[in-house]
Amino acid sequence: MQESATTIAIGPEQPSTRLLEKAIVGAGAKVGELADADALIWTGTPDAFPTELPAAVRWVQLPAAGIEDFFDAGVFAAHPDVLFTSAAGAFAHSVAEHALMLLLAGVRYLPEHLRATSWQQREFFPHVGSLRGKTVTILGAGGIGRALIPMLAPLGAHVIAVNRSGRPVTGAGIPAEVETVPAEQLSRVWSHTDHVVVAAPATAETRHLIGADELARLRPSSWVINVARGSLIDTDALVDALSRGVIGGAGLDVTDPEPLPDGHPLWTLPNAIITPHDSNPPQLRLAAFADHVGANVTRFVAGEPLLAIIEPERGY
Amino acid sequence: MQESATTIAIGPEQPSTRLLEKAIVGAGAKVGELADADALIWTGTPDAFPTELPAAVRWVQLPAAGIEDFFDAGVFAAHPDVLFTSAAGAFAHSVAEHALMLLLAGVRYLPEHLRATSWQQREFFPHVGSLRGKTVTILGAGGIGRALIPMLAPLGAHVIAVNRSGRPVTGAGIPAEVETVPAEQLSRVWSHTDHVVVAAPATAETRHLIGADELARLRPSSWVINVARGSLIDTDALVDALSRGVIGGAGLDVTDPEPLPDGHPLWTLPNAIITPHDSNPPQLRLAAFADHVGANVTRFVAGEPLLAIIEPERGY
Repeated sequence: MQESATTIAIGPEQPSTRLLEKAIVGAGAKVGELADADALIWTGTPDAFPTELPAAVRWVQLPAAGIEDFFDAGVFAAHPDVLFTSAAGAFAHSVAEHALMLLLAGVRYLPEHLRATSWQQREFFPHVGSLRGKTVTILGAGGIGRALIPMLAPLGAHVIAVNRSGRPVTGAGIPAEVETVPAEQLSRVWSHTDHVVVAAPATAETRHLIGADELARLRPSSWVINVARGSLIDTDALVDALSRGVIGGAGLDVTDPEPLPDGHPLWTLPNAIITPHDSNPPQLRLAAFADHVGANVTRFVAGEPLLAIIEPERGY
Repeated sequence: MQESATTIAIGPEQPSTRLLEKAIVGAGAKVGELADADALIWTGTPDAFPTELPAAVRWVQLPAAGIEDFFDAGVFAAHPDVLFTSAAGAFAHSVAEHALMLLLAGVRYLPEHLRATSWQQREFFPHVGSLRGKTVTILGAGGIGRALIPMLAPLGAHVIAVNRSGRPVTGAGIPAEVETVPAEQLSRVWSHTDHVVVAAPATAETRHLIGADELARLRPSSWVINVARGSLIDTDALVDALSRGVIGGAGLDVTDPEPLPDGHPLWTLPNAIITPHDSNPPQLRLAAFADHVGANVTRFVAGEPLLAIIEPERGY
């Protein structure tokens, strides 16, 4: 077998780079020292990034989706001739899967089932719902939203995606029937929304995007899922809506305040599911990063455009 | 607007036929009396079925997927010139969605999350899994299995479908990568199975299909989901495996014995999720039947072959 011409370094050395090595070799390159490398998969912090790189290194893959810290550390300015890629999009899958899990568990009445210690079929029957034929509104059509839509499609749910521009959301596995609504017209989605998934960035404009008014326009069977940031939902309004049965329930991987303090009412409301911001735990992050590295090394070896290219002059 | 030529009767009269009427009208026919009808949507029991039908009635849609009771009541023999269809396949979607919910809830460690009353991110992190890249073996490739496969595909799970013949499972939304294994070779799937969904019919051959040996060959992170019949799993062996951490957990919509008696260990094992055979509750059944009726009336109006045709001479 001919030896691969493309050499990829991993740095800084870490105990758990086996998954990355496997991804690199699986993509048709070999793992080597930085001195011999064509590219570098960086697994460390911005501060530890080398001030000089061997001239042969043409591409650096960074380990984060948000790369503000690498800007602040001057990494891009120090290496103007190197192509940098981020891990944008790589970590969305696990969060989208988590959102789907929370939504299904809510809609199918799992919290009450888990508390039961006797066979209550007749009591539970009327509360078991389905996503089939229901409309799920996703606030935010970034990586998480775009990963979630293909998961909802085979369940027979209709999806309304809300983004800033209102430009139709497209991508692999996203059905043509998905309706895209610009954020400024958000108020017109509530009357035909059954469930809401919050997956938008936290900004001044999205603070308390879901408040008492929005909750009041949902249904007694509606579930609200938040996998974005706690501040997008008005927590007091949510607790009130959950307590009075204004909505069916809430599945929250993020809270405001976060961490949610002991004794907070959300811990004990029967129709609230709290997961402590663990929708994307470290071991899944590493596996997702390795998948992303594999995809990018494959493209690098083939001379094709890489995923998630950083354009320093544009600031992202 | 021209009046529709096709008239469909619903019988016997019941309080909640509005969904069916909507499905019939939506499919381009009109709802009328049996005396004027071209077809009959039957919502009643076999015993109440009319001994005589008007000669113009060419098609009867029955409300059940299993139609043994209609055979026993002599319904087909009494109407040899009428085409009968069952509701086979119509009710699989909700059960498949339930299986997906149980599997995701288990894999993502939801039961422990629901017991928590404090923010335990570090403690929970290592236990939150994902279906991405995992292999899910589905025992049985009937309606439920075929409905579940398209739901698993966008989650990045690999599927092994086990059926009697080993003939490749095909259908809408079923990816070509699905591996089909004949039941007689079941023993070779365990070494590369992460999770199991039991969705096979209960027969003498499938009794205790999952017993101590099969559980021992799974992984400490494996979840076993049963949405078929309780007898397919050896309950005592399952309780033992759950207690000793041989597998990760079990999500059971059906149990043996069923109903599960008060005080049974499955009620309190932390890694068992019990739902009291409510994966397909009455209100979802009616909605699914209405969808099926709509699809068949559309085909009837267009003169196309109907879904789930019963062939009395073959016994199903």
